[in-house]
Parts: sequence; structure tokens; C-alpha cells
Amino acid sequence: MPKISDKAIQMPESPIRKLVPFAEGAKERGVNVFHLNIGQPDIKTPEVVMEALSKIDRTVIEYSHSAGYESYRKKLAKYYQGIGLDVNSEDILITTGGSEALMFSMQVCLNPEDEVIIPEPFYANYNGFAKSSGVNVVPVTSKIEDGFALPSMVEFEKLITERTKAIVICNPANPTGYVYSKEELQVLRDLVKKYDLFLFADEVYREFCYEGSPFSVLSLKGIEQNVVMIDSVSKRYSMCGARIGAIVSKNQDLIKNALKFGQARLSPPTLGQIAGEAALDTPQSYFDEVQVEYQKRRDVVVARLNNIEGVICPMPKGAFYAIAQLPVDDAEKFCQWLLEEFSHEGSTVMFAPAAGFYSSPNMGMKEIRIAYVLNEVDLNKAMDCLEVALKEYNK
Amino acid sequence: MPKISDKAIQMPESPIRKLVPFAEGAKERGVNVFHLNIGQPDIKTPEVVMEALSKIDRTVIEYSHSAGYESYRKKLAKYYQGIGLDVNSEDILITTGGSEALMFSMQVCLNPEDEVIIPEPFYANYNGFAKSSGVNVVPVTSKIEDGFALPSMVEFEKLITERTKAIVICNPANPTGYVYSKEELQVLRDLVKKYDLFLFADEVYREFCYEGSPFSVLSLKGIEQNVVMIDSVSKRYSMCGARIGAIVSKNQDLIKNALKFGQARLSPPTLGQIAGEAALDTPQSYFDEVQVEYQKRRDVVVARLNNIEGVICPMPKGAFYAIAQLPVDDAEKFCQWLLEEFSHEGSTVMFAPAAGFYSSPNMGMKEIRIAYVLNEVDLNKAMDCLEVALKEYNK
Repeated sequence: MPKISDKAIQMPESPIRKLVPFAEGAKERGVNVFHLNIGQPDIKTPEVVMEALSKIDRTVIEYSHSAGYESYRKKLAKYYQGIGLDVNSEDILITTGGSEALMFSMQVCLNPEDEVIIPEPFYANYNGFAKSSGVNVVPVTSKIEDGFALPSMVEFEKLITERTKAIVICNPANPTGYVYSKEELQVLRDLVKKYDLFLFADEVYREFCYEGSPFSVLSLKGIEQNVVMIDSVSKRYSMCGARIGAIVSKNQDLIKNALKFGQARLSPPTLGQIAGEAALDTPQSYFDEVQVEYQKRRDVVVARLNNIEGVICPMPKGAFYAIAQLPVDDAEKFCQWLLEEFSHEGSTVMFAPAAGFYSSPNMGMKEIRIAYVLNEVDLNKAMDCLEVALKEYNK
Repeated sequence: MPKISDKAIQMPESPIRKLVPFAEGAKERGVNVFHLNIGQPDIKTPEVVMEALSKIDRTVIEYSHSAGYESYRKKLAKYYQGIGLDVNSEDILITTGGSEALMFSMQVCLNPEDEVIIPEPFYANYNGFAKSSGVNVVPVTSKIEDGFALPSMVEFEKLITERTKAIVICNPANPTGYVYSKEELQVLRDLVKKYDLFLFADEVYREFCYEGSPFSVLSLKGIEQNVVMIDSVSKRYSMCGARIGAIVSKNQDLIKNALKFGQARLSPPTLGQIAGEAALDTPQSYFDEVQVEYQKRRDVVVARLNNIEGVICPMPKGAFYAIAQLPVDDAEKFCQWLLEEFSHEGSTVMFAPAAGFYSSPNMGMKEIRIAYVLNEVDLNKAMDCLEVALKEYNK
């Protein structure tokens, strides 16, 4: 039997999905599981999308252009222009989700063994994309006691070597909910300019910002050729399954080369693009309602968490995640125990252990990521479970 | 401005799509272009698929399981069982097109600098997937004068080194239309067994076979752990844009590790899976009609080609491609000239220069790949164009 590759063996399992078998076990025992482990919102996909899908009038589901439908790219450019960003359709490559956008960006910009600096905790799949591309992740730690603010320029500079080629940020951030200020982004601009690095910014949570508007990397002056913005329709329109994202960059050489990777996989999903293009007509009222709903959820969850003895949870300003530190020895063990051994009024709760969002060893061992993607009633029940569980676990 | 990666620079452009700007130029001048360059069939997607899409009754387009919906995998397993293959749902990983299936397979089975042997001419994107994975392609040449039959075991063995980890075949083959016999596949089995290699078989054209049934690698005895079958809904149901494929293997370790790459990209497209699952109810009459139609097209094209002085085109037994050798100095120059300078009764024709399907330098320079994906009337007009063009070009 031939051996599988070292790369496959080293490829990390998803910390968000690795406890799934235990959740399935709980369900088999008749226990209801509140899923706060995964960023799959319960919010409805906009009606304009479902309507467009029910009315597809083509007879052949064909390939699109490898860069995505031109009509979609043009309409998407207008969306960006509408939020004050200087983006034209030729600055956009439509991808199969934000995942592929980041994957292509790493492949196009970094050689194997090159280094990318990422503030941790970070979206765990960045590890997978880096491993897939043979790129080394160098973490710079942001701290729960600072509310996960951007580490200082000095901290970044300590890590820069001749192999450093890029910085990746997520803003608003998964998993911390932190939103970088204009000043923090200017620190990144100075860094990127000084060392001539690429700056990849995952801005897929742009619409989920509870205190003012987020500042896009595309607005940073003087580093237009260094900046790559990663986008996706998944969260904005609650259509994660459409698998449509985009690379947005003023660096035409980068876009042209990314297209070669795009040609190898032929085209992004046609049906998802139909959904994505229709979604651009979503009325503002949809976003307003979603925003109010998530802000309420956030306030409930964070208040409940900080009311539990020994729990620390900084107030997230965006996205729909929070990181909380628990009074336990090992959050992963605790999360598994919640699924295997605990129930309260017939229910339990599933979180993502936060250690998997850190790249440094032994970091975040007492932390969990909470995706507040359920309604207020269920969130309160889930917090009841956590409160009771912590008492029982620590007995 | 930071530099893009060596990998991106080396990443090949698609030979199928690189002449697209010249085709666009022709259209701008008002010239009709018969597209025989790309495997985008004009056949209608089955009605059961379009109906399923018009009746989607979900309110949220959610992620699916990273391995694809269980209901889809179970139904797909039944399809394989129906054609005599021992496949269960746990042997299947649903992917974003056959492209991702092959990409994951290479990543899971080969380390960077490992070698994969592929009979050339081969589907050009195999080069892209290999480059993306840092894997080296070692071509073994099949010859037009042999009708592109499998090279002998001796030819393969000459190329095997300690870095050889896999063989890739496409059966029925893109771009040659060749269908491997049971005896040829047994040669591959012996090779794979002797050197303990992986055997990746791209069988996406299974339903397009004009002389008997194709023999799947999944039927080969004694190498069950070595075999990976790559599948896709794209051609079978004329829905290339759905971007749904599959890895099928009895090697559970391989499937388990491929799932880690699957988790990193979260899920295959949900809408495409709805289409794929519905497509499994396509009535046999659909395939019978398609088969008759393509056989007719093949017969027209190949007869017309071999009637032109100096043109050689072996009879393809499957898929919907043929390779023809033309009486020209350089087929790529000729193909570009067809788009830039030629027209006949207001039309011209676009082919894919075949050199891009070879990995050895200077091979296939006089050859083109023809995708016979248009109706008989248009195919005849396209062949008229070719016939007139060759006379004019060679003046």
C-alpha cells in the first residue's frame, strides 16, 4: 500500500469540526446540541436570491469565465464603489469561496518555505491554506487582556526575516470579533511599505460591525500594489453554501497570475454566481435587521459570559464571534466533556476550543470560540448550559 | 512592489483558453466563431436538474458536510453499484469539480518534488494541478500513429525512479478520445502493483463511449488501496458550471486525509450538490440520445478531417475530442491566424493547439484538439472553414 504524503499527515484537522463525532454521539443519545462552534448563521438568505434561483432560465449549466461572469464582476465593482472603494471589474477575480481566494493569493505571492505573519488567534483554516502551499505561518500573539488589539509594530518587526513575504489579517476578525482601527491599519501600512510585503486582508465580515464602519485595506494609500482583499458572499448574505468569494487587488500582475490558477480549476460555481449577482440587489433593510439581531445576540452572550464566575470575555466589535477564557484546566477537554457527559434540561452546547486558532504551542488552552449564530432564546439556554456545566465540571 | 512567486510565474496558461482574446477580436470584427476549442457541450442539462433547482425549498443556503451531503453520497454510491462497481458512501468525497478531486489527490498522495507519470498528450490542467502541488510531471508519449494507445510497460518502466509515486490516466481520454482496453488497464495494474504506486484515473467521460463499455480502474483486482477514481457531473449531465466532482477510493486512509483538505475549504457547493443529486434521476433515454448525437458528430468530424489532404485523425472511441495532425508548420500559429486573419462565409473556427497537451518539448506542434461539441450543421460549417483555411494558409 503506497504511503500518503507528509503534507497530508501534517495537514491540520479543523478545530471547528473535530469535535463533530462527539456532537453526533450526544444527538444519538437524544441530547439537543446548541451549535455555537461553527459560523453557520441561522439568518435567512435574502429573498431576491431564492427568487433568482427559482427562475433560472438557462437550459445548460455552463462554465463561466475563469475569472467569473463579467456581469457579476461589474456589478460587484459598483458595490465596492458604493462603500467608497476604488475598485473596477478588472481588479476582481471571482473565486470558489473566500477559501479559494486566500489559497490562490498564497500560491501567487509566496514560494514554498516563505513566511507569512498572522496575528493569532486566527481563523484556523489559514493554517490549512499555508500547509497546502508549503508556506510557513509565523504567529504574532494578540492578547485577551488587550481585547485582541493589533500587536505593536515592534512585535511584528521582531519576526521579520528575509523569507517574510506577507501579513494576513482578518477584519472584522474571526475568531476574536476585534475590528482594527484606522490607526492600527496605518501601522500595518507602514510595516508593509517598509519591508515591501503583501498584505492579505480577509474582510468577509465587513457588514457585521457594531461600532462605526470598518476601514478597508483598499483605502490605505501608497501600498495599492501590496494589498489583496479577500471577500465572500457567505456571511454577508447568509449563503455559505454558495461558495462564492473574490480576490480584489489593484495589482494587475497578481490578478493576471491568479487567473492562471483559476483557469486550472476552470470556473467558479455558476449557480453560486447567479445567487451572488442577485444578492447585490438585497435591500438595505435586510442588513439593518441582521445588524440589530446580531448586536442583540452579542450583548446577551457577552453579558452572560462575564457574569459567570471566572469567565473573561472581551466585548467584540464585529463579526459574530467572541473568545472567552474559562476557569478550566483544558478547554478542549471541557468541550468534549460537554458533548460526552453533560446535559442540562435535555440540552448541551458545542463550542470550538480556541487552542486550534493559535499557531504558537500551548496558547489559548483555557479559551473557547463562541459563534453567536442562534436566536436569543437559544443563546440564553446555551449560556444556562455553560453556567451549570462549569459548576459541575469544577466540582 | 513585492514580487509574485516563482510558482505563479511557472504556472502554465491554459492552452484551451489562451487564444480567447483572438476569438474576442474576431467577434468584435463581426466574424462568427465556431468554438471547437473547449469541452463545453451544447447538450441540455437534464430537466430533472432544472426542476430541482426551481423548487429549492430551503430558506438558508448553508454549508454542507465537508465531504458533501450524506444523502448525495449514498445515492451516488448506488449509481456506481448500478454500473457494477463496489463503492459505498464512505468511499466517496464530494469535491468542487473533478479539478479539486485531482488537486486533493495529488496533495494527499505526493510530496513536493515527487513524480507522477502521465501518458501524453494529456488534459492540460494536470500540469496546473501538479505545479500547484510542487509535483513533477514525467510524460510517457502515446503516438498518433498508434491511435494514442497506452505506451508499453517497458516505456513506463524506463521512467520510474525512486521519486515516482503515481500514474495518472484519463479514460475515456481527453484530449485523444482513446478508450483503454481491459488488457491495457491490466498492464497498468501490474505496474502499479510492482512499484507500489497510486493510480489516479479520471473517468469523467465514462458515459461517452462508442464501442462497448469502458473498464473502470475500480474493477482492477489486487490494487484496491492504490486506486483513486476521479469523477465529475460536468460532462455526464452537461452541467460543467455546477462544479461538482468526487474522489472515489477504497483507501480509507486516503479519503480521511483528503477530508482534511476538504475541511480547509469548508464544503463543496451546496447548489451544485442539489443539482448533482437530482441528476442521478436522469432517465436512461437522455444518455441514449446524447450517445447517438455524439457518435453522429464524431463520425462527421473524423470523416471530414480525414478527407482533407494532409490531415490525419485517428478514430476516437470515447469522450468528445479528437486529435488531428494538420499539414502546417505550427498549429498554434495556424489557430491564431484562423482567428485573426481568416473567415469563410462570415465564420471561422477555434481549435485548441495540441502542443499544450504535451509535456515533452516540441511535441504535437502540428496537432490540434477538436472538441466536437456543436450540432452537425455547425460542425460541417466549421469543417468547411478548416478545409478552405488550410488551402489559403498553405498558399
